[in-house]
Amino acid sequence: MAVICKRLLVVGLGLIGGSMARAARQRGLVAEVLGVSRSEATLRAAEERGVVDKSYADITEALAVLEAGDVILIATPTLSVPAMLKHCRGAIERGVICTDAASVKGSIAVAAEEIFGCLPANLVLGHPIAGSEQSGIEAVNPELYVDHRIILTPADSTDASAIEKVSALWQGVGGVVSRMSIADHDKVLAATSHLPHVLAFTLVDTLAKQEERLDIFRYAAGGFRDFTRIAGSDPVMWHDIVLANDKAVLQWIAELQTQLTAVAADIEAADSGALLDRFARAKAARERFLELFENIGASRTPN
Amino acid sequence: MAVICKRLLVVGLGLIGGSMARAARQRGLVAEVLGVSRSEATLRAAEERGVVDKSYADITEALAVLEAGDVILIATPTLSVPAMLKHCRGAIERGVICTDAASVKGSIAVAAEEIFGCLPANLVLGHPIAGSEQSGIEAVNPELYVDHRIILTPADSTDASAIEKVSALWQGVGGVVSRMSIADHDKVLAATSHLPHVLAFTLVDTLAKQEERLDIFRYAAGGFRDFTRIAGSDPVMWHDIVLANDKAVLQWIAELQTQLTAVAADIEAADSGALLDRFARAKAARERFLELFENIGASRTPN
Repeated sequence: MAVICKRLLVVGLGLIGGSMARAARQRGLVAEVLGVSRSEATLRAAEERGVVDKSYADITEALAVLEAGDVILIATPTLSVPAMLKHCRGAIERGVICTDAASVKGSIAVAAEEIFGCLPANLVLGHPIAGSEQSGIEAVNPELYVDHRIILTPADSTDASAIEKVSALWQGVGGVVSRMSIADHDKVLAATSHLPHVLAFTLVDTLAKQEERLDIFRYAAGGFRDFTRIAGSDPVMWHDIVLANDKAVLQWIAELQTQLTAVAADIEAADSGALLDRFARAKAARERFLELFENIGASRTPN
Repeated sequence: MAVICKRLLVVGLGLIGGSMARAARQRGLVAEVLGVSRSEATLRAAEERGVVDKSYADITEALAVLEAGDVILIATPTLSVPAMLKHCRGAIERGVICTDAASVKGSIAVAAEEIFGCLPANLVLGHPIAGSEQSGIEAVNPELYVDHRIILTPADSTDASAIEKVSALWQGVGGVVSRMSIADHDKVLAATSHLPHVLAFTLVDTLAKQEERLDIFRYAAGGFRDFTRIAGSDPVMWHDIVLANDKAVLQWIAELQTQLTAVAADIEAADSGALLDRFARAKAARERFLELFENIGASRTPN
């Protein structure tokens, strides 16, 4: 198989960037994988673990190596992506393809328009749905993307060959690539990822306030552990995501509050039928979700 | 080891009752395990799987066999426990010890006081914290209670030897027995179990309402699967529990709503510091919980 591009530069060598870098190297998708990190410890670990071919502490130095047709993956925290795009401006303007991995797309698109005056045709915004409550170079896993969805959110003006190259990279590491509008992406991810994280953090924080008097956590079981697993995620990363996707997250919080108020009214009125309907509807919907989730591998034909 | 009592009668052979019956037989805790179920299929399965020594379709027939000092475990759905207590009234009045496994204790105590005129000294209310989104005789597991907490909620008037016998049964199947007041039990379990179930059901139901337009579930990942696992639980059982523990559940819903409103205000104001504090506090609290959860085996010395 011909390589997808000569050089892949991964900016940020955490779980997301590091896993792409290592998988691309292992699978021979590109001729050379370059990596940038601000952290010396991360750069050392990336070299020791064979995550990159070459590593750079200085992004300018790494960008200077790139040629038109090479690919940059920005995999730094959501709120830092605009600053990285500024760094990459020269490279993008001379034809280097750029993509990102941030969990929110609207705020990145707005920042790009401010920096470039428009969305550059060779900027392909994307989001691999493959997070974890683990993070950092220690968590890097070249199989991370296998059978995971990758959402690309190109604009009408985005260059088709740039989209193709970015798709090929994600498919090359095992991902299942779909396309969505930026608005739909941010609304959907707010629902299935950002809102659940806000809820898990808020639930645990609410209970912890009364923990001392009631010794609440001592009597919690496995269901509680799983329900709150995502409250073990990186607070800084999730703070970034929630602020970047504030409008969609606020809409879902409001919608959930409305439904919680309705549930509370049903409980207060001891409306057995209404309560049973709600719970049964939810169980049925979750079963539909599980089918989709378990069948994702079957849909992994390139499209 | 001497047997704990001559006969154990388990009323309701689902996950909870069936697992106790089978474990008590396997471990030789009692001379004879009797089981009652309304369902013929369950009775057949219970005999085939060696869950009980003798099975009865008619509770009155089973109760007639019992003598003072034998133990009844009522393990039927929460809202049906009062009716079972009525059936057991004669046996309890002639000195048979009775315990239950319902997830809510206040509503059962109120029902018992109505039936008996007071809380009988040989009625020891209890709750094994060992549920699962699985249920029924098919899910029976004799190891279910190993290193799981069992909360007993005796009153001051409860007979010490009855408490001891019930404790010995739970410890005999591997459980870690604690005591709490009924009020604290219902408040704490509402927090760590009933509220999370209401939340999971409500979240999934809320998203499902917009599923058709947005295809929301197609883009959900593993975090969502775990967060909503408990929304796969039995709707009837959870409807029972929530209605039986309505006051405590409503208090926690109100408390969570207050906190969600505050989080939404932080997001709207882009109050980075406040949001980060909340998320970091939650992560730290969850880590305390995980330590408690993982160390439960270490506390399994009888007390």
